[in-house]
Order: sequence, then C-alpha cells, then structure tokens
Amino acid sequence: MKPKQVAIVGASGYSGEELVRLLLSHPYAELSAVTSRQYGGQTIAQVFPKFGHLQRAKTLQFSEPKPELLAKQAQLIFLALPHGVAVEFAIPLLHLGCQVIDLSADFRLRNPAAYKDFYAHDHPSPELLTQAVYGLPEIYRASIQKASLVASPGCYPTSILLPAIPLLKAKLIHSSGIIADSLSGVSGAGRKAEADYLFVECNESMRPYGLPKHRHLSEIEQELSLAAGTEVTIQFTPHLIPVNRGILTTLYLAPQEHFSDAKGANLVAEKISACYQEAYGHEPFVRLLEGKALPDTKNVIGTNVLEIAWRLDPRTGRLVVMSAEDNLVKGASGQAIQSMNLMCGWPETSGLS
Amino acid sequence: MKPKQVAIVGASGYSGEELVRLLLSHPYAELSAVTSRQYGGQTIAQVFPKFGHLQRAKTLQFSEPKPELLAKQAQLIFLALPHGVAVEFAIPLLHLGCQVIDLSADFRLRNPAAYKDFYAHDHPSPELLTQAVYGLPEIYRASIQKASLVASPGCYPTSILLPAIPLLKAKLIHSSGIIADSLSGVSGAGRKAEADYLFVECNESMRPYGLPKHRHLSEIEQELSLAAGTEVTIQFTPHLIPVNRGILTTLYLAPQEHFSDAKGANLVAEKISACYQEAYGHEPFVRLLEGKALPDTKNVIGTNVLEIAWRLDPRTGRLVVMSAEDNLVKGASGQAIQSMNLMCGWPETSGLS
Amino acid sequence: MKPKQVAIVGASGYSGEELVRLLLSHPYAELSAVTSRQYGGQTIAQVFPKFGHLQRAKTLQFSEPKPELLAKQAQLIFLALPHGVAVEFAIPLLHLGCQVIDLSADFRLRNPAAYKDFYAHDHPSPELLTQAVYGLPEIYRASIQKASLVASPGCYPTSILLPAIPLLKAKLIHSSGIIADSLSGVSGAGRKAEADYLFVECNESMRPYGLPKHRHLSEIEQELSLAAGTEVTIQFTPHLIPVNRGILTTLYLAPQEHFSDAKGANLVAEKISACYQEAYGHEPFVRLLEGKALPDTKNVIGTNVLEIAWRLDPRTGRLVVMSAEDNLVKGASGQAIQSMNLMCGWPETSGLS
Amino acid sequence: MKPKQVAIVGASGYSGEELVRLLLSHPYAELSAVTSRQYGGQTIAQVFPKFGHLQRAKTLQFSEPKPELLAKQAQLIFLALPHGVAVEFAIPLLHLGCQVIDLSADFRLRNPAAYKDFYAHDHPSPELLTQAVYGLPEIYRASIQKASLVASPGCYPTSILLPAIPLLKAKLIHSSGIIADSLSGVSGAGRKAEADYLFVECNESMRPYGLPKHRHLSEIEQELSLAAGTEVTIQFTPHLIPVNRGILTTLYLAPQEHFSDAKGANLVAEKISACYQEAYGHEPFVRLLEGKALPDTKNVIGTNVLEIAWRLDPRTGRLVVMSAEDNLVKGASGQAIQSMNLMCGWPETSGLS
Repeated sequence: MKPKQVAIVGASGYSGEELVRLLLSHPYAELSAVTSRQYGGQTIAQVFPKFGHLQRAKTLQFSEPKPELLAKQAQLIFLALPHGVAVEFAIPLLHLGCQVIDLSADFRLRNPAAYKDFYAHDHPSPELLTQAVYGLPEIYRASIQKASLVASPGCYPTSILLPAIPLLKAKLIHSSGIIADSLSGVSGAGRKAEADYLFVECNESMRPYGLPKHRHLSEIEQELSLAAGTEVTIQFTPHLIPVNRGILTTLYLAPQEHFSDAKGANLVAEKISACYQEAYGHEPFVRLLEGKALPDTKNVIGTNVLEIAWRLDPRTGRLVVMSAEDNLVKGASGQAIQSMNLMCGWPETSGLS
Repeated sequence: MKPKQVAIVGASGYSGEELVRLLLSHPYAELSAVTSRQYGGQTIAQVFPKFGHLQRAKTLQFSEPKPELLAKQAQLIFLALPHGVAVEFAIPLLHLGCQVIDLSADFRLRNPAAYKDFYAHDHPSPELLTQAVYGLPEIYRASIQKASLVASPGCYPTSILLPAIPLLKAKLIHSSGIIADSLSGVSGAGRKAEADYLFVECNESMRPYGLPKHRHLSEIEQELSLAAGTEVTIQFTPHLIPVNRGILTTLYLAPQEHFSDAKGANLVAEKISACYQEAYGHEPFVRLLEGKALPDTKNVIGTNVLEIAWRLDPRTGRLVVMSAEDNLVKGASGQAIQSMNLMCGWPETSGLS
Repeated sequence: MKPKQVAIVGASGYSGEELVRLLLSHPYAELSAVTSRQYGGQTIAQVFPKFGHLQRAKTLQFSEPKPELLAKQAQLIFLALPHGVAVEFAIPLLHLGCQVIDLSADFRLRNPAAYKDFYAHDHPSPELLTQAVYGLPEIYRASIQKASLVASPGCYPTSILLPAIPLLKAKLIHSSGIIADSLSGVSGAGRKAEADYLFVECNESMRPYGLPKHRHLSEIEQELSLAAGTEVTIQFTPHLIPVNRGILTTLYLAPQEHFSDAKGANLVAEKISACYQEAYGHEPFVRLLEGKALPDTKNVIGTNVLEIAWRLDPRTGRLVVMSAEDNLVKGASGQAIQSMNLMCGWPETSGLS
Repeated sequence: MKPKQVAIVGASGYSGEELVRLLLSHPYAELSAVTSRQYGGQTIAQVFPKFGHLQRAKTLQFSEPKPELLAKQAQLIFLALPHGVAVEFAIPLLHLGCQVIDLSADFRLRNPAAYKDFYAHDHPSPELLTQAVYGLPEIYRASIQKASLVASPGCYPTSILLPAIPLLKAKLIHSSGIIADSLSGVSGAGRKAEADYLFVECNESMRPYGLPKHRHLSEIEQELSLAAGTEVTIQFTPHLIPVNRGILTTLYLAPQEHFSDAKGANLVAEKISACYQEAYGHEPFVRLLEGKALPDTKNVIGTNVLEIAWRLDPRTGRLVVMSAEDNLVKGASGQAIQSMNLMCGWPETSGLS
C-alpha cells in the first residue's frame, strides 16, 4: 500500500512537534510537508535535534504555509495553530479537497453563539461548525470515519469527557453539580516565550489559573449536555504543575442512586463498573484501573492511553472519578492521529502503540 | 531576657529539621536538646550539613530520647514523632512539668471514638484529649496561650480549615457538600525510604492517593463541625505533586445566598470579603490576595504565611476558595513555633519573619 | 519468521523495566519469561501499569528465577541483576546452551586482578571473562555477532568510550591526562529505597559522588587502554542531577597536535571531524552534532542515540568533547537489545527506532 | 542607630528580587527606593507577592530609575542591571556622592583591553576600572571597606575563585592546565522570556553552553592571575541544570608536589588542608567540608555560604576541588550585601544569617 501524504501546518509548537514524532514512524502515513513561519528553510532535524537520527527528518524542510501548495503536497492536513488562525487555513484547504484535522478550538463548538460567548468575536465561518466532527473517537467513531473536517478535542476536555460521558448517558449520575479539578503539565501552555512559563517561575510552584470561566468549558459543557440530554454547567478549575506533560483530572459526581454505607455503595459500584466496562472494556486507548490502582500521569506519558479509576464514598454519597492522560498525546496529537486512522480506514491503533 | 530552653524529640525527619532551622535563629528560645534514635552522638551540623555555619549546630549533639533527661534540659518540648509514638513521650513529659507541642495526630481529636474510627485502635490516654488545645492560633489563640499541651494541626487540615472556618462561622456557606481538593509536595510523606517516594517515582508524576478516607479527615471534620455548629462531612482528595514543599488546596463551597449573575455575585462577594477581612485582615500569617492574584505555593515556601483567594462563579452559583502554604512551615513546624510564642508570652511572629 | 523466545532475569529494576518496554514491541523477539523475587505471581501489567494496554503484559507473570526453567522458556536471556548475582545465573544458563546478555559489571573486565582491585573480592568464574565480549556494538560489532556471552557496558562507560575511542585509536589525542566529568539522572542509582534518592533529597540538588575511584573506572580504563595501545588512567567525577534519565559527559582532552590560534585549530579540527565521520558517520545510533549544536539529554531521552559534539579551544590548546545519552537505553537496555540484534542476525536497529 | 537608606536600581530581575528579600530584613539598612522601567508605580508586594506580608513591601513603590532622585533617596545604591547599562548609572551616582555596588560585569575587569576582548566594545569609562574594587570579601576585605565602587563578582567566578585562589597563592598547584566544570541552576539566566529557558525546555534536560569562551572567563582569569603572580588561562565549561538555584563547580588541578600513592597523597593533603584552614577556617561564609562529606547545592540554597571539599587522587596525581553556592546569594546578592556591610562598618554577617 502506498503511504498517504500528510502535512502539518504549524509544526513548531509542542503539539506540532508531537505530530512530527508520531507521523515520522507511522506505518501508513508519510509526512510530506511541515510549515512554520519561524523556521522556513530549516530541516526537521535542525529544528528538533531529537529526530536527527531519522532519515526523513534530515531532508524534510519547514516551508511557509501556503494552502494551494499544501493541497498539492498532501491529501490530509493537520492544523496545529492558535485558535483564530486555524480557520483561515481550514477554509481553503477544504475547498481544495483536503481532509483536515484541526487541533485548535476553531471548530469544536456547534453553536456559534457559544463560540462568541467564550472567544469574544463572531466565528468567521459558522457554516463549517455543522460540518465538523468532534474528534473523540471513543464517542464519535462512526462520524469521524466519514468526516472531512475533524475538530480534535482539547486536552482538558478529553480528560473530563471520556470519564463523564458514559455515566451521564447511562443516567448513573446527576447532570448538575459536576466539578472537574484538573492539573496540567507546563507543555499545555505551548512553546510561548512568556515569563510565566519560565523554568524558575514553574518549578517548585503549584497554582490555579483561568478560573472560573476557562475557554475549554465551552466544548466540555457542549459534549456533556449532549450526553446528558439536558443542559449541563460544570465547575472547572485548572492548575499548573511543574511537570512537562500530563493531565490529571479529579471529577466530583453525584450518583443518581443514593447510598450511605458500604453495602449500598457496592450495589452502585456494580452498575458503574458495568457501565465503564461496556463503554471502554474493548477500547484500545482507555485503561480502566482495577483494585487499589489509581491514575498516575507517569504511567501514560508518551502513550495515547487515558487511565480511569473511581471511588464511591459512603460517607458523602459521592462518586470521585480520576483520569490521567498525556496532554500532548491523547490530549492532542495522538488523538488526532487516532482520528486520521479512522478517516483513512486504517487500524485505529496504527502508529500509536 | 534569658532564653527559654526548648528541645525537639524526633528531630531527624523533615518537620524536625524545619524546627531545628527555625529554633536555631529564634530570638527568645534556645535549642538545648535534639533527639534521634538513628543519629545519637552526631552533631546537628553532621546530620544536616546545611546548618554547618551556625555555631550551635556544630556543638549540639543528637541524643537518645529519654523523658527524664529531657525534662531537665528543657522547659518546652516539641514532639516530631510518628503518631502513636508521640503520646508515649507526652505523658511523662507533662507529668514532669514540661510544656508540650505535639506535631503528630495523637492529640488532635477530642473524641476518642473518632480516633479509633480513623486510627484503628483505642487512644492510649483519652483523658489527655480534653486537655490538649488544637494549635491553630488564628482560631484558638486564647486557649493556646494557657495550654500546656498543644496538638499542632496537620498540613492538609491547616490549608482547609483556615479558609473554611470563617465562612462557616458566619453562615455564609452551607455546611454540607464541601469538597477539598489538595495538592501536596513530597516532603509531606516524610523522610521515609520507600520506593513510592524515590525521585524517579515522583518526578514527572501527578497522582491522587489515600482517598476517600484519608486520616486527616478526622481533625478537619471535627473543626469544621465546631465552626458550623453542626456535624460536617466533607469530600477530600489529596494528590502527590513533584515539588519539595507546598500545599495547594481548592475548596468547592455552596454559598447560603443564591446568585446567578454578576450583580448577585457582587452582593455575595461583599459579604465574603468582609468576613475574611474581619477574620484575617490583621493576622500576620494569613495573606488575603486581591485583584487577579491567585495563590501560588512558590510565594509562601519557607514562610509561615497561608495565602487565600476566592472566586464566585455566577454560572454555577458556587464559591471556589484556594489556599497555599508551606506544608513544613505553616502546615507543621512554623505553626508549632507560632503556638510556642503564644504559650510563652512572646510576640507571636518571633522567629518567623 | 518465528519470533525468538527471550527472558529477563531481574525485570523489576529500572533497566529491567526498560528491557520489558523494548522487548514488548520488538519485531523478532518475544518476551517469554520475566523473573523477580519480589513480584512473583504478578503480571507485568500489575507491576508496571504503564504497560497495561499491551496484551502480553496482561498475561505474562513474573516468576521465581530458576535457570533450568529459564533455559526451557527462552534461548536468549538478559540478566538485569546486581553485580555479583548475575554471574551465578550466567554460569548455569551458558551451560544449558542459552545466549546470555549481562547488564551488570560481572563480565566486563578481562583481567581478574582489575576486578578484584575494584570489587574487593575474587571473580567467581574468571575463565568466563575471556569468553565474554564487551557489548559496545560500534566497537566490537563482529565479536558480538559470534558471542554467546555479552557483557553490556555501564552507562557512564558508554558515554565516555564512544567519544574517546576513535580519537585514541587515531592517535589524535594524548592518552594521558584525560578527564571525564559526568552528570547522571537519578534512575542511574536504580530502584533502591534509600533515603539518598528520595525526591526531596535529589530535587533542587546537584552533587558529586563516588570520586575519585568509581567502579566504572575499571572498564573505562580497560577499553581506553586497548584503544590507545598503552595503559590509560583517567580522572572521572560523576554527579547526581535531578532528572529521571540521561547522562551528560564532558571530556577534557589534549590533542597530539599543538595549536594556539584559530588557524591552527582549524587544521586539527579537520582531522577530528574526519576521524569521527569515519568512525560514526554511518552508525545508526551515534549522532555527530554540527554547527553550533551542543548535546542535550532531552534530545536523546527514550532513544538509543548517543550525541557527540566537540570544541577546540585555541586559548588552551585543549579539545573538549561532550556526549549525551539516555542512561537506561544506550547506557543500558537499548544497547543490550542492539547486541541481541547482532547476536541473532537481525537488523541492528530492530525494535530501537 | 538610624538605618542607612539604600536603593536598588533594576530590582525586578532575580538578583534584584533577592536583594529586596535580603534588604527588607536587614538590621542596619533600610530599603528606600527600588526602580524598574517595567513595574513603575506598583508596590513591591504587587510585583513580588511573596513579600506581601512585610509592611514595607506594601508601601514601597517601584519608580523610574533617575540618578538625581536616587542620590537623594539613598546613600548606597545597588545596580542589578544588564552589563553595559550599569555603567550609565554608576557614573552619575558616584559623582553625586553615592556608594555604588554593581552586580553587573561593568567594573570587574581592571584592564580595558580584556573588557573589549570579551565584550566586543570599548569600556565607556575606563578610568573607573581602577577605582572599582572586586567585591570578593574573603580576598579583598580591606579594600572593600574603603571602596566607593564595588564590582560584585559573577556567580561562576565566585564558585571558582574562592576554592582556587588560596592554592595558587600558596603555590600548592600549578597555574597552568586548570579546568573548571560548572553546573548552574536556571535562575542564572535571569528572568528573560526566552524559549530556551521555558520550563519544558529545561526540565529533564542537562546541557553545556557558552563554551569555550564564556564571558565570565575574563574576570576569573584576571583574579587567578593576580593570585598566581603569573598569567593564568583556564578551561571553563558551564552547564545548564534543571534546578532553580545553585552552582556546583568541579575544579581539576595539578598539585605542585608529585605523589603516586596514598602515603604521598597524605603529605600533600596536609598542606592543602592547612592552606584552606588558614584561608577560610574563620570565614563565616566558607564551609570547609570534612570527612566523607561532599558539596551539595541543596545545603547552601538560600544562604550566603560556599561549601568546599577536595580529593587527591593517587591514581592520577591530581587534585579535585568541588564547591557549591547559591548563585543568587553568595554568587550575587548575598555577596553584595556582604560588601555593603564592610563598606558601612557593620558586622559582616548582618542580614545574612
């Protein structure tokens, strides 16, 4: 089988670099173009020395991002650009017949009003919002297979949606009062030269930020609402933690069924366990932890796996669900590759294990 | 004024080491004895090279912990021992007329039944539980001044109680449904040679642990209940984070007064602000952050300060309160020194600024 | 081609874990047995949750290490054991016809007297020392291909030998006065529950250790002497640095040819450049950096690549060579896999790129 | 005693912030002005929340740096500015009668030619070079006491000069062939928003930089030459390490006296030990480690102490000396305070212990 040509627009950020890593060793896709305004003319190996032992990295040069040229070089394009910029490339690339996987927030919201509420300006191409498929393969597998435009989810949303959606769909938890407390590694802030993300400012520091109305809330609530069949509003607090990679999310949920002792908890536990087994028991990239195991970001770093564990608390009647993922893989580039595999009819795990 | 002689029993752990640091430069107290089974015969400077430039550290040797000898060497004794061991020293030391500040959990609970529930054995000296004062100076200042036995609070409890108690006392928040999500540096685990706390196991890792029934819950709920005037049960999730020091707690609270827009939030905000101002506006070791500032553990490391900030969320009607402290200072040894200052009639900030 | 069955004895340390990672995805080898006294009866997935998404990890259980059984389960055995223990397994396994790759120091020295000098006891099986091949593929490729016992080099030695050997062989540098200053991540100390390697003791710390006579010197000097054709004694200072993985070595060398200005340096530079090109220009796992690039351990983490850069200093007439590797991959398990590939006649990069 | 008014020009960088920290609690000096182009009008507490519990930090505002105004506000001025900028303030401030302590490189070199060689432009005020005193109190105590302009040494130079100078003065080591291999925490790069110093780029990374002709070499070689009484040229390699603070230097030196066994080494060791004892046995800020102890940056962080240990190697005949310091304290602001104490006739350790 001849490999498919794929390109990355905006390949010099952390998500772009991770796409480069995954695509350089993908069995069916061939990286045919990478763009960067900053590094035009340099090879991948020059910009990212870590790939210097790979032949393709020594020859493939960064180029200026030009849609018409990209459409000739590749059939499928990843956009790893800031929100607001991605849409400007997606429009012409789709017109030129390319498949597009966008890692920004530009196509994640179905409702232009929600976009304006969270991003403070009108969406430049609202008609594309209905065309785009939200790229969470475990939830939208069939739609992704047929999509020409995939809006790959954000890192926080992935860590919240995968644990919460099955419980909401099964009506095992109340749709109100949901709290998501998340911890993120610093790569989540991107490769921006800002003082806040200097080593000395982050190391030996733990801090919340961006609350109470972080932009990721818009896509989180959209997808939770769809799962619950009713409008869902959640509390979300992100924290910045001195690790390179990883997101650890703790969800505080209220089971529909009341319990106040170990026995009652056991009955609820059986249903939750069955729900997760049905939803993810056969998923290659969701790991349901058993026994005393709890999520730990170090166990998912570099992989496309999201870990889930949960505990019922008979003292409070509450359900606590925890998840761990690599924000740059399952939370960004790995999940985008997973979508590509589906869009192209390849085994879903290709290049990801 | 002749300095008061004080001793530390169990001075080789992280809390003990921090007590050494603070007492070596205290203006009114003089460190007259330090004990350690492991380091008997060695000087402080030998065990902790970082204090090697201080004269006293070069001469003062670790000794075996013997109550009768300690009572001759010091009038006030800090116990920095594992729970269950501290009580064995507190009993004879109190009999011998010493003032005792215990940093373990042995005297923090007023109710022997709660002790048994959380620690799985009967308390060896329940009569002392009524004598002991819970060493949170901002709450129990007057009692500490007269105490002969102070049970210095745990690190997590301090970070939760100081932000929550004034709101509960003022009936500004509901006493049910409280959630505390906490992040702790690795020194919180003590200087134990266990594989879980090796550098490689903690670095680049974020993980929850000990939920849903962490032992610190017992003292947290005891004190919250006292503040609320009714029994309080909370949800508490601790996480281990790769920093040496610091605790960052995020509290999810339900204001008694309903609001659903910015205007309503402003009215509630005024009351919360006034409540905190009244409670802590003049406290030397509580910093109420203003404007856009949010707590950051790097801003409290090495100090006895606890930072508090809060946000009302008109979308959810909830109050989110965040606090940051150094787990070894305000969360342990600094707070114990603060109690000592009160017990001895010295300015409360002595040796702490 | 039917995969070859391979086993790991002592698979629960960091090198063992890394062997597990590499062998679980190796195209020609199949991991058929892993042993651990501590984890007997548990699956790989239970002991190392990070491999939990791989089918084989869910079924393969750790077993007690028994040579006779191992010889039935596998044709090639990796020994990831402490020195002194490895030899006890190597002897019976070789007798039983297995190929053995030992990652300990037990078979690295050709001279039993040197072994005694550095390890303070007689070698238990000196006759095997002549049979063993030092597993540095770039230097001993042909011998490794025919070996039944490979002594895989230590992490520090690899980072020193690969940069130094070509220069010594080509007589471009003096064999006396060599200095190697090395920095190592904490995984180099192994998964030992010792207080020295706790997170809090290593984080925010930089410290030398083990000088001036670190045990690795014995194999370093043996191999440098063979390259130089004369006895070489070097100065070596290892340092412990708060990173999980990586070794960064700085070598201070004296070029045979004198120079004292930029022009003179250029002439010498051409020879050094040609020497390295000839030695490593076609090696898949040695990256010769060009231009202004300098080694950075973050660019080799997780790979089997060793990076080399060098600078001539006209002010001092000296040559400074720097190398970076992942101590657990090129410095241990990856290099051992590279040797396996050679011993088995597979492409040398199999499972390593 | 009425406190002396002192000011900091350029107080928003890491050295400036550390000066703020030390001066806010100095017993004899009072911080009367801080300047910053970026933060003009904000209080210290607003810019550095960590000082928010100190009264003076709540009221003292950053102002624009104007020499005439500064000369009215303070009698002694610290310049924590980039090199090339400091000189522009030093000239008018000295004219206006202020004492000046400059933490930049602008006045460290006595020879304008050396300045031009390393900084690529003529010194703007060469006559001041002869007036300035190099602010290494252990070496130039008497001169500093009488100085009006002190050029406070760089962080790397301090870590190299203090261990090397006594040995050179005593002719115990050869002045040629000296090698200094240094490791620095990231704060050494300053609070510059450059991608190279982002958390993700530094964490899990170890890398050399700036060799073979780092600018600090100019002052290092100047001072070593003065100590040796002959021109000294050294090899110097700095490395960037993922810690906030600290410099660890390893010096490779050749003793004048030959030895090749333990007995010979002992004789040389006695002389070295005596030399260091004489030089530093009574210094409050130099800690000579004994026994098996080796320097560790974590033992000097936050203090003005420099640790020294050394080993003679009978195998090579070489002397290895290691030092550790906090680059922002003994390597910058603490040492500058030490000079201030001398210039003002206060106890040298004031505000530093």
